[in-house]
Amino acid sequence: MKENCGVVGVFNVKEAGKILYLSLFSLQHRGQESCGFVLSDFKNVYIHRGMGLVEDVFSKVNFENIKGNFGIGHVRYSTTGSSSEKNIQPFVVEYKGKIYAIAHNGNLVNSYSLRKKLEEEGTLFQTTLDTEIIMHLIFKSKKNEFVEKLIDGLEKLKGAYSLVIFTEEGIYAVKDPNGFRPLCLGKLEDGYIVSSESCAFDLIGGEYLREIEEGEILFIGKNGLKSYYLKKNKISRCIFEFIYFARPDSKVFGKSVYIARKKLGERLAEELPFKGEIVIPVPDSGNIAAIGLAEKLKIPFEMGFIRNHYIGRTFIKPFQTSRELGVKIKLNVVPEVIKNKDIIVVEDSIVRGTTSTLRIKELRKAGVRKVYMAISCPPIKYPCFYGIDFPSKKELIASDKDIKEIREIIGLDGLYYLSLEGMLSAISLPSDEFCTACFTGNYSVETIDFKGKEQFEI
Amino acid sequence: MKENCGVVGVFNVKEAGKILYLSLFSLQHRGQESCGFVLSDFKNVYIHRGMGLVEDVFSKVNFENIKGNFGIGHVRYSTTGSSSEKNIQPFVVEYKGKIYAIAHNGNLVNSYSLRKKLEEEGTLFQTTLDTEIIMHLIFKSKKNEFVEKLIDGLEKLKGAYSLVIFTEEGIYAVKDPNGFRPLCLGKLEDGYIVSSESCAFDLIGGEYLREIEEGEILFIGKNGLKSYYLKKNKISRCIFEFIYFARPDSKVFGKSVYIARKKLGERLAEELPFKGEIVIPVPDSGNIAAIGLAEKLKIPFEMGFIRNHYIGRTFIKPFQTSRELGVKIKLNVVPEVIKNKDIIVVEDSIVRGTTSTLRIKELRKAGVRKVYMAISCPPIKYPCFYGIDFPSKKELIASDKDIKEIREIIGLDGLYYLSLEGMLSAISLPSDEFCTACFTGNYSVETIDFKGKEQFEI
Amino acid sequence: MKENCGVVGVFNVKEAGKILYLSLFSLQHRGQESCGFVLSDFKNVYIHRGMGLVEDVFSKVNFENIKGNFGIGHVRYSTTGSSSEKNIQPFVVEYKGKIYAIAHNGNLVNSYSLRKKLEEEGTLFQTTLDTEIIMHLIFKSKKNEFVEKLIDGLEKLKGAYSLVIFTEEGIYAVKDPNGFRPLCLGKLEDGYIVSSESCAFDLIGGEYLREIEEGEILFIGKNGLKSYYLKKNKISRCIFEFIYFARPDSKVFGKSVYIARKKLGERLAEELPFKGEIVIPVPDSGNIAAIGLAEKLKIPFEMGFIRNHYIGRTFIKPFQTSRELGVKIKLNVVPEVIKNKDIIVVEDSIVRGTTSTLRIKELRKAGVRKVYMAISCPPIKYPCFYGIDFPSKKELIASDKDIKEIREIIGLDGLYYLSLEGMLSAISLPSDEFCTACFTGNYSVETIDFKGKEQFEI
Amino acid sequence: MKENCGVVGVFNVKEAGKILYLSLFSLQHRGQESCGFVLSDFKNVYIHRGMGLVEDVFSKVNFENIKGNFGIGHVRYSTTGSSSEKNIQPFVVEYKGKIYAIAHNGNLVNSYSLRKKLEEEGTLFQTTLDTEIIMHLIFKSKKNEFVEKLIDGLEKLKGAYSLVIFTEEGIYAVKDPNGFRPLCLGKLEDGYIVSSESCAFDLIGGEYLREIEEGEILFIGKNGLKSYYLKKNKISRCIFEFIYFARPDSKVFGKSVYIARKKLGERLAEELPFKGEIVIPVPDSGNIAAIGLAEKLKIPFEMGFIRNHYIGRTFIKPFQTSRELGVKIKLNVVPEVIKNKDIIVVEDSIVRGTTSTLRIKELRKAGVRKVYMAISCPPIKYPCFYGIDFPSKKELIASDKDIKEIREIIGLDGLYYLSLEGMLSAISLPSDEFCTACFTGNYSVETIDFKGKEQFEI
Repeated sequence: MKENCGVVGVFNVKEAGKILYLSLFSLQHRGQESCGFVLSDFKNVYIHRGMGLVEDVFSKVNFENIKGNFGIGHVRYSTTGSSSEKNIQPFVVEYKGKIYAIAHNGNLVNSYSLRKKLEEEGTLFQTTLDTEIIMHLIFKSKKNEFVEKLIDGLEKLKGAYSLVIFTEEGIYAVKDPNGFRPLCLGKLEDGYIVSSESCAFDLIGGEYLREIEEGEILFIGKNGLKSYYLKKNKISRCIFEFIYFARPDSKVFGKSVYIARKKLGERLAEELPFKGEIVIPVPDSGNIAAIGLAEKLKIPFEMGFIRNHYIGRTFIKPFQTSRELGVKIKLNVVPEVIKNKDIIVVEDSIVRGTTSTLRIKELRKAGVRKVYMAISCPPIKYPCFYGIDFPSKKELIASDKDIKEIREIIGLDGLYYLSLEGMLSAISLPSDEFCTACFTGNYSVETIDFKGKEQFEI
Repeated sequence: MKENCGVVGVFNVKEAGKILYLSLFSLQHRGQESCGFVLSDFKNVYIHRGMGLVEDVFSKVNFENIKGNFGIGHVRYSTTGSSSEKNIQPFVVEYKGKIYAIAHNGNLVNSYSLRKKLEEEGTLFQTTLDTEIIMHLIFKSKKNEFVEKLIDGLEKLKGAYSLVIFTEEGIYAVKDPNGFRPLCLGKLEDGYIVSSESCAFDLIGGEYLREIEEGEILFIGKNGLKSYYLKKNKISRCIFEFIYFARPDSKVFGKSVYIARKKLGERLAEELPFKGEIVIPVPDSGNIAAIGLAEKLKIPFEMGFIRNHYIGRTFIKPFQTSRELGVKIKLNVVPEVIKNKDIIVVEDSIVRGTTSTLRIKELRKAGVRKVYMAISCPPIKYPCFYGIDFPSKKELIASDKDIKEIREIIGLDGLYYLSLEGMLSAISLPSDEFCTACFTGNYSVETIDFKGKEQFEI
Repeated sequence: MKENCGVVGVFNVKEAGKILYLSLFSLQHRGQESCGFVLSDFKNVYIHRGMGLVEDVFSKVNFENIKGNFGIGHVRYSTTGSSSEKNIQPFVVEYKGKIYAIAHNGNLVNSYSLRKKLEEEGTLFQTTLDTEIIMHLIFKSKKNEFVEKLIDGLEKLKGAYSLVIFTEEGIYAVKDPNGFRPLCLGKLEDGYIVSSESCAFDLIGGEYLREIEEGEILFIGKNGLKSYYLKKNKISRCIFEFIYFARPDSKVFGKSVYIARKKLGERLAEELPFKGEIVIPVPDSGNIAAIGLAEKLKIPFEMGFIRNHYIGRTFIKPFQTSRELGVKIKLNVVPEVIKNKDIIVVEDSIVRGTTSTLRIKELRKAGVRKVYMAISCPPIKYPCFYGIDFPSKKELIASDKDIKEIREIIGLDGLYYLSLEGMLSAISLPSDEFCTACFTGNYSVETIDFKGKEQFEI
Repeated sequence: MKENCGVVGVFNVKEAGKILYLSLFSLQHRGQESCGFVLSDFKNVYIHRGMGLVEDVFSKVNFENIKGNFGIGHVRYSTTGSSSEKNIQPFVVEYKGKIYAIAHNGNLVNSYSLRKKLEEEGTLFQTTLDTEIIMHLIFKSKKNEFVEKLIDGLEKLKGAYSLVIFTEEGIYAVKDPNGFRPLCLGKLEDGYIVSSESCAFDLIGGEYLREIEEGEILFIGKNGLKSYYLKKNKISRCIFEFIYFARPDSKVFGKSVYIARKKLGERLAEELPFKGEIVIPVPDSGNIAAIGLAEKLKIPFEMGFIRNHYIGRTFIKPFQTSRELGVKIKLNVVPEVIKNKDIIVVEDSIVRGTTSTLRIKELRKAGVRKVYMAISCPPIKYPCFYGIDFPSKKELIASDKDIKEIREIIGLDGLYYLSLEGMLSAISLPSDEFCTACFTGNYSVETIDFKGKEQFEI
């Protein structure tokens, strides 16, 4: 089960309920399908989970009744077909009268074999979540202390996992030894907060401390912080967090996303083989790279697409078959800006190419002269097994088409993808510590894909 | 966890989804807190569960998309404090790529020790349901065939369990060797239906065949019916199903509830130490006994209380503190019927006595001359550990008060409870095969009560 | 626009909001389509109206914020096709900075001509309600005082109208000179309550005083009660209120509905041309007459049909085409009661006959020997223009079929309708003061039916 | 009643329902409180209105059943305290069997006296809408033809009104002789569309034709377009539509909003008395002016505030008292962009100043060196009586404070407002044809403000 999510944990704060709610809201872009939290005031444990956006799921919670001092939360990404109530996280179990809960961002690559082995031993599964596998592995351990059991269980996992774990004594923040997904630590009130992205700290007045290390198991409890470590492995940070996934006002892996994106745009300017009169971004993901590009090229940056802010989940319902409308409804062209001009459109990436094709058609209808497209990463040719929900290889337009073919399909006068070197050079982290599998096919850990029988929750 | 519920299962029917929906609706009086079903068309498995009434939970299901051929369903009773989404049944697991589900009516008495033992072996629990324990016991068995595992698991249970079990090959209907709770078999289309009560057959055109035997494990699959048996034990049918719990248009334990209730009323007439001018029931549970009583006494039967049919779950919200209003709102007195008369009020039973006290006050306000009460069972003095959600012993008015004291508290001119012998003689089943523990304190199997830490789902 | 509704008004009570809510709930059987109230604390005016049942419409109202001292309320009956939000009552207008509101039970017969005349004078209409016509007529009057304007306006109306009117000074209760629909006055706290039926008084502790007179305009204000009178006319009380419409625990037109229904049953017993072994009612409307019949005939009364209490508005949705299921779902036969017996089924009335046909089929399936039907009123042959929503003449089974034909269609061994004389003699009010138009075709005021263009609110 | 809204009308299109839905969605920024439409297929008239966003209000409409060929729609702005279901537009009446409906953008200044006069004549009001007054005035006219009645009625109005009117023969588009509010005409399929802003045309493939003239009454019916004219008056276009209210991808009053805003920014650059290192907008309303400013100043444009796209209407509920959080939640600062820099923040306008104060505090916390603010219009000192919902004079920070005081309150190192001349020169329309009353206090038509008793719909 692929998961592209956001996690958060807090310890020793006055109103953990509100804090978790606000943090999940800040991480909403990482997952809109479902969300939930588990928190405690050292006496009772409160659980609330539901399908939908943070605001909707928590709309009926009376936060005055569940203040709490520590807890964890999760937002889950909507992947087609697997949307289901039973898969809402955090995943909660009771073991010997105590509550444990896990929230997971990432994707295990050996989940199928782990699950099979557990079932042979008589273990039942109620969800299709990696987290359920992790929970069983922890409690099957013969070790006595929870942290020992935890290490025992985690050592069996392969793949991407940034976890926050709730116990009745405190919370754990865990990052896999490859360090695929971001997870950072901040100071908050007299306690701490961990979060997939640092933007969650800002709204609630947290102070950024550091990124969780690769293979680190950080316990936050009444005696403060205590770290344990898993066996080391090759570091493989997901570069796509910088390209697209994280918010520009976040730090991930210790670095500003905004600065990275602007540099991606500047680097694009250096490599770009064509010229234009103005630069326009595909908002909002292309905004910052476009600013960098325009500044470097010394040509005007214009907002040639205007975004409609009122689109909810059901808007398109009366027009189910019209993909075209679905695209137009999000962005509207400003004809006065682009008419009779040679323009460079900046986009973070091209996945299937269908949306881009429709966007370019709109620009042509509005009277653009020439339209070029600059992409702030190389062509995406391979699926991700570590947590990004790209479509299958077959659907990735760059998997079997060269740039000329893509340019023609989309209807462009020119198309340029940032080079791999260019992309890597734009971010001030070691190039060989990035996972670039979606561009290169070089997967840092083996991949096993599981396809079992579907179970429909209606 | 006490459970007082309704279960249903069907096999080899054309539209299992609609059939289960209608059956659950017919069993709605056995549980209004939550409900759900699991069904299959031999290809896919469909699960739908939710909090609330059958009608509401299934209001958005498109039955045309999930016709199905077999499946099971459950309605759950609302017991204070333990109401929770995670406890909705049927309980579903996946094991080696196959779906299994259980719906349970009854209550295990050794659940605490079973659970403790399973946890020692590293088993995690996600719910507080007995059904989760049963599932683990089944799949921990070293036997190969599912039915062998099932027997293995069930032999470890003590207490009340009428189960329906869904497997991808067919359904099982199980009744514990004591036979505490009813479960009956019917013919439906070219297949079969099992249900807690026979009233579920009528709406959908099913034909009553027989009661499931004590300790019987009935498998209904492509080759028809096949029965297995658990070790025998003392038979202990719950007599309270006849007194109050089942619908008058049902058969339970093979006998008509209507006929039983009428005979309870007739027997009451024989024993009654006082006289009155008219008989009025507390509707609807007192109706049939009142008819029997009035007919035997040859005095008029009148509907002195009129029931309001529009009360939903939230009606009383604006008046939270007023218990009195809560009682008045359900039944209104017809003063013209009872004014200046000596009346005999027939009630199925008295639990706490608070509602009766308020009702009698209303009758006095409306001008009754003398008011007597006839109860169609003996005083309830002991809690039930086999599935009926009586309050704790302390709250049962008859646990520490004699009849004279109760009469005074309620404000009656006379109070008579049917004798134990009278009650038993009214139902044409062997007297020594009934559980009468709530009246006598003679529990047929040992009782262990578990009180763990509460976990609040908000 | 036909309206078959319930109205209520209170003055000088402590919590008018809660009182109106409870009263509307007590009158819910008179209208389930929509409801609403208007109330005031002599400073602000609060309005709340909505589609649906009282409980649902008011579920989000915070009654602590709108206590109020006086106000009016309305429940509206669902008539096919005209269900619409804009027609929710009370109907509210602002005139010279003051709020006025009307709630109406009944039906005007000259609404078309009144409306046409008002439109000629430039009056706009926003609803299809009679109440909007009444409001315009009041304020078009050249008189100065509101009560004079009111009398002026009401004198122009023909047909049935029991009204409660809200002004910022107090409330008016009005009954048309024919007195078609009931309206009664009660004492409540230090003030008063008026209501379509007296059952509304019971729940809130009101004391019945008297029926509003025919043609009376009763003002309830700070100086207590003051009555005005419209020109006299022939009294024409709707007898169908006793037969079916009102609740048995109500008084209407000053008389107990329960007593009337029981006498209808007793009178039926005297006239009945056939014999049976037991009497069973079609619940709940046939209950009381059946009790009267059985008592008089000295044969057992049995509840051969059991009513399901959990049917809400959307239950039948998945089975839209099945009228049969719709009937079965409400009542289930108890075969043990009727098997191999000659039974007399008591029903209040037969309208189309389709439901009765399906019910009799169920009884035969359950093994009845002979089945007779006794109806507690004569055949309904003519439509009602004064507020009861009977179907068109064509759809009334008795409009063109004799009793033998009806008996055969329904599939009965015998059918008997109470005689007109029998019906009239059962109620202790002057026979010539009843409207019996639906039985006899003798309409007491002329009838004009209006059919305009439909306007769909979706 | 102040109204700041959006209107739309279409004629002779294939699916008027969907077209109106999409158009209202495009105009959603002009009003989020309520919305509705009225449409017809020349046979039936369909009305749908509700509280909330377009997407929510229309979520249950089955557009396949109400295709329609022409109709009108409205989105309504949420003004504090007057939010009420009865005020949802379009306002619909029936007159002599025909439906008429009006949707209104603007605000009448003589509504109080018009209403008073109408009430003297016995006219009742059901809403507090200007549109109800307009409707009555039209139908009180003694003229015969509707268009004559319409002209008769409109000549009595003073103030701002851009109207679309539905009749069963076609639609009217009306602009008041002062031309306060925009309204433009487009070609669509074989018919026409009118809309407050041209952005509504883009999504549905309409082609911009022209602005409706001041005082024009345009009828669109089966014979195409036909114009009538009201008496001329001084032209007074609202300049604030360019500054803030309209979408940048719209044309209003015939001119591109984007171009106007960019020129406002360029002109600001010429006038600006201070320097900075980078320019950052307050998104989204400050975006385009900031681009113009940065480009002209030749310093970098950066998105120092990142907007959260997931804020719905109820998000802030658990934190009711925290205005600070409400501001932070919408925009988050990117510290890496602004740290140790002198920055120029571009904002469209300052109303109360409270939000700006909180925003500047956030910038300072994030480590900005110096922070200047550039406003793309002069100080707003006076309320608007023509439709913009500014707060009362007392609450407008510039009404009684000079620029130095405002700068200090907000906590800026420098504050500059664009000059009146600068603002006027940035838009290529005659300077003396703009209403600048909110800046200058020179109101083009007399103003009467009405404050009646409040009527609360709960």
